[in-house]
Amino acid sequence: MSHTDAKALANAIRFLSIDAILQAGEGHQGVPLGMAEIATALFTRHLKFNPADPTWADRDRFVLSNGHGSMLLYSLLYLSGYARIGLDQIQSFRELGSHCAGHPEYDPGAGIEVTTGPLGQGIANALGMAIAEAYLAARFGRGIVDHYTYAFVGDGCLQEGIGQEMISLAGHLRLGKLILCWDDNRITDDGSTELSISEDVAARFRVAGWHVQEVDGHDLEAVSAALEIARQDPRPSLLACRTVIAQGITRLQGQRGGHSGRLFAADAQQMRDALDWPHAPFEVPGPVLDAWRAAGRRSQAEYGAWHERVAALAPAERAEFERVQAGALPEGWREVLEDYRQRAMQSDEAPAGIMISADISDLLTPHLPERMVGCADLEAPTGHKRQLRAFTPGERAGAYVHCGVREHLMGAMANGMAAHGGVIALAVTYLAFSDYERPAMRMAALMGLPVKFVFSHDSIGVGRNGPTHQPVEILASLRAMPNMQVMRPADAVEAAECWMLALEHRTGPCTLVFARQALPRVRAKHVEENLSRRGAYVLAEAEGGARQVTLLATGSEVAVALAARTRLQGDGVPTAVVSMPCWSLFEAQDADYRAAVLGPGTVRVGVEAAVRLGWDRYLGERGAFVGMTGFGASGPAEALYEHFGITAEQVASQAMRLL
Amino acid sequence: MSHTDAKALANAIRFLSIDAILQAGEGHQGVPLGMAEIATALFTRHLKFNPADPTWADRDRFVLSNGHGSMLLYSLLYLSGYARIGLDQIQSFRELGSHCAGHPEYDPGAGIEVTTGPLGQGIANALGMAIAEAYLAARFGRGIVDHYTYAFVGDGCLQEGIGQEMISLAGHLRLGKLILCWDDNRITDDGSTELSISEDVAARFRVAGWHVQEVDGHDLEAVSAALEIARQDPRPSLLACRTVIAQGITRLQGQRGGHSGRLFAADAQQMRDALDWPHAPFEVPGPVLDAWRAAGRRSQAEYGAWHERVAALAPAERAEFERVQAGALPEGWREVLEDYRQRAMQSDEAPAGIMISADISDLLTPHLPERMVGCADLEAPTGHKRQLRAFTPGERAGAYVHCGVREHLMGAMANGMAAHGGVIALAVTYLAFSDYERPAMRMAALMGLPVKFVFSHDSIGVGRNGPTHQPVEILASLRAMPNMQVMRPADAVEAAECWMLALEHRTGPCTLVFARQALPRVRAKHVEENLSRRGAYVLAEAEGGARQVTLLATGSEVAVALAARTRLQGDGVPTAVVSMPCWSLFEAQDADYRAAVLGPGTVRVGVEAAVRLGWDRYLGERGAFVGMTGFGASGPAEALYEHFGITAEQVASQAMRLL
Repeated sequence: MSHTDAKALANAIRFLSIDAILQAGEGHQGVPLGMAEIATALFTRHLKFNPADPTWADRDRFVLSNGHGSMLLYSLLYLSGYARIGLDQIQSFRELGSHCAGHPEYDPGAGIEVTTGPLGQGIANALGMAIAEAYLAARFGRGIVDHYTYAFVGDGCLQEGIGQEMISLAGHLRLGKLILCWDDNRITDDGSTELSISEDVAARFRVAGWHVQEVDGHDLEAVSAALEIARQDPRPSLLACRTVIAQGITRLQGQRGGHSGRLFAADAQQMRDALDWPHAPFEVPGPVLDAWRAAGRRSQAEYGAWHERVAALAPAERAEFERVQAGALPEGWREVLEDYRQRAMQSDEAPAGIMISADISDLLTPHLPERMVGCADLEAPTGHKRQLRAFTPGERAGAYVHCGVREHLMGAMANGMAAHGGVIALAVTYLAFSDYERPAMRMAALMGLPVKFVFSHDSIGVGRNGPTHQPVEILASLRAMPNMQVMRPADAVEAAECWMLALEHRTGPCTLVFARQALPRVRAKHVEENLSRRGAYVLAEAEGGARQVTLLATGSEVAVALAARTRLQGDGVPTAVVSMPCWSLFEAQDADYRAAVLGPGTVRVGVEAAVRLGWDRYLGERGAFVGMTGFGASGPAEALYEHFGITAEQVASQAMRLL
Repeated sequence: MSHTDAKALANAIRFLSIDAILQAGEGHQGVPLGMAEIATALFTRHLKFNPADPTWADRDRFVLSNGHGSMLLYSLLYLSGYARIGLDQIQSFRELGSHCAGHPEYDPGAGIEVTTGPLGQGIANALGMAIAEAYLAARFGRGIVDHYTYAFVGDGCLQEGIGQEMISLAGHLRLGKLILCWDDNRITDDGSTELSISEDVAARFRVAGWHVQEVDGHDLEAVSAALEIARQDPRPSLLACRTVIAQGITRLQGQRGGHSGRLFAADAQQMRDALDWPHAPFEVPGPVLDAWRAAGRRSQAEYGAWHERVAALAPAERAEFERVQAGALPEGWREVLEDYRQRAMQSDEAPAGIMISADISDLLTPHLPERMVGCADLEAPTGHKRQLRAFTPGERAGAYVHCGVREHLMGAMANGMAAHGGVIALAVTYLAFSDYERPAMRMAALMGLPVKFVFSHDSIGVGRNGPTHQPVEILASLRAMPNMQVMRPADAVEAAECWMLALEHRTGPCTLVFARQALPRVRAKHVEENLSRRGAYVLAEAEGGARQVTLLATGSEVAVALAARTRLQGDGVPTAVVSMPCWSLFEAQDADYRAAVLGPGTVRVGVEAAVRLGWDRYLGERGAFVGMTGFGASGPAEALYEHFGITAEQVASQAMRLL
């Protein structure tokens, strides 16, 4: 392809983008105009992909971390031939229902690998993808898993803390198949980057062990050559691409307004004139479109060869590869948890909450080799490493990632692993630090990715480490998040049940919340059914008459409720205890079940070592709540439960007061 | 003081720390043992402070960012003579009620400048303090404000994204009076730092424009000399102090267990023998304590001279300085907002929600020069700069900080500014990005700092930018946070009222939430009272009979509720609309007021373009809610309100259904 032809391919991106933005009345032209040559170099010469089979397991992954430049991605997908991104979609950019949303929305079948927009998430996702790739390659061999992960990134992503965390850890892990193209246009929304940053960004990458090349981002040949060098280097690579924001529109290029300043028809006309593009809006000349579609077919031979290699695998290995790609669970895992659950019902031990999860994790290890665990420097107190080896530059078969004290990155990496597929991603830390991770958890919920967010130290039960480490508002804040299945098991029996549910749950993330302190058994009676599946259930029915009081509790406070029930029953008050490990699952039950559990007309008292917000839904207008009204304090856990009045005595006396 | 004497001063820290940790049964000995010499060098030779007047305005600030090493701080405070940290407090370390909590808890009167523990927060606070110092020095002159900000920091703080954001912005702003001492012990909770980081941390600081010295952290003279050099350098300074974690305890020093591994009496005895410290637990030999107390009196001459300089100020300037130090509001500000409120009641304009706040901000500028605004690269769409100059290396009188795309840092900097005093700190971004800032917001609530967190783009009203940028769960998640006053005004009248309340509120942070879209006036009727002060109030009472329906709404949805009321009244249903700008203020009203507002026995419908969590408290068991059940979508705002059914028609029909 001649130099001129390549320029035309890039300009096709430019014109599709501004035509769509002009039609929508708003959008971000800075990225598609500024990165058109870089994108063209990547998609027409390097990216391994097959628009006819967008979810090909061994495709290179491409992440537009500067997601506001979404028209760049949509243009690329349309031009290279992804069926789901037709011209009609481009023309409905930013309209309700269009595949071409304001920011790219996760849709791997359309070629959109992850949702991006909140800055820094995309490159952290890309790191997760690169980790998944390296791990799967170690499991299945380079003939089966051998792809690059590319991400486009702007200044915003790199200013964000999560971006810096990503630079640091990717360099440490030497993920050589991760390649970033930085849109070094020296402009952010506020204007010149000089307003808020002075450092040599390329040097910062070098310090972290990256391979860095600096290149003219409008010189397609130079970018292409640099990409080839980057692919060969054993370190993760940065292409620092010097670009002009909004290049092509004289009025805006290189200016603050280039980012997302209002476009006018005259701007489009000026660019048509300047770039010699005498075509109507949304019209891509035939030869240009043909060349793009040919680029979209570029990897077909590789695609075929890969399928042959997969077909040639030993049947068991092939089945295993296909299983993990499909996200299907293997034989045997459920029996292991079911067996654990049965034993827990008969055991008098009271293990620390988080160590129950760690024990379950150990049991799963031989059955779920696709499970990868990330943890933010809390290996010992959370216990989820044990039998796992660390994933390191020298040991790609390790399934445990020492994330360092980088919770936000950990969460977003887990999202990237889940979006990549072939692995089940866990992210483990203390519940108090979930706030650091929360923006990534939100993205998992928004994308519907089956990430397992595991937390320990879930209440004032943390004790002496004090209020900084004691979540009181976090259960409520996570329950508020749509599509996040929050589970807080009361004992080892419920823990096994919740882990079963978490592993089965494929349409969104789960949050599994465990106490630091010991969780005595609350479910001794054998039942076949996984009662946690109902979200809430009657753990102990009232005795000696019609139920007068219903005590509702979760997690470590279920034992408090049971002790309160003993008092109340002793006083002749028929009292039931309802355990509520997962509110959202309870909400999904039918009205009759919910009413039967909650006991209409009974006095209700909620018990949770957390704030009340949300509980009124279950307590009714007469109900009471025993929990926290403010932050915790530093002191022994038992003293704190007393101090804050989260005791069986309090619960019983609240119930008596209401009777 | 001889070299030997200085060693004894450092060892006094070591023994107090391990005696307290041993007594508590848990704690983190790594920092106090590893940084004893560094702390001694700083506190006995450089730090400007006065334990007899801990809140002296011009004291140097000291932040223990690695807050888990709290016994280092408590030892320093006791030894140097802070009255509130007596030996009894040290001896009750980690007991409920002790000033010596597991992690340092904000108490400037005790010498604890900020709460620390969640990693990275402290150094970001320190940056905020250094900014406040530079700004106040520009306002009042170097004779009045002229102090350093020192922070101790471990590997964890520097791995965190917020730590990296801090390094980048502090270097950019060239805050030469900010000095970090890094406890370079190469150990984190998981073990060797090599598990998760390979980069040359000192080089990373150099890239960001810091002055870096590498020094033996156990060589007190070398540390002291380096501190002196750091003080002279115009750049922010890092002392990379090579240390041995838990130095002094042979069994643990330099080991993973040094961080917080269980201590035994034998360890204390071994250290006593090795360091020739034949004193009983908690006993500091007289000459050592005398020397420490003398160090605590070291700045008395400076203290006196400073008071003389303040006394010599022109009376108006002195009064102004004392006013801002006290956090008192000046004359005139309220009248400005009251006047705006009156005009808003009479205006038919419907400005964009966030621009109402920007207009109010402009009005306040001449009256509140102590107000500093940070914004995370959203100057144009949030509008809170306008008349303010930027705070830059060359312009320290600028009150607007271009934070870059670093929301988390922005929030924690604001906390540091508020803890410093003399300024009113605002932090501005989109509500969707509050999740990035949330860990800092939590710290503000926990400390009770009067930071104003201002957010725009508060719902699906964001429109075409789509669900990544549309908060739906965030109002609930912020309402869950103790001590966070969340306000969502419905129009310019309520906005003025809420801003009045926010400025008056001194015991904790406020969150002010504004729409991107236009907010038509909902309060036309003149009233003297600031109705928002009640948290919720009857905006429009039912007409034509006893109230049958109560519609409850906040922010942009109050207009929807009013339109629904018109429909219902038209159908002969007496309907009231209650505006609820601040739930927590409403909760603080007496039961009679609350009942009168909510209308017992009436049909209630809540309306908010957000999730239901929390609303049931006001809706009762029969109530309905019109809002969001999941994430938003990309499309025009009006289309989204229709699509998600947040319309007057829906609200009215829900009410009719329930009647």
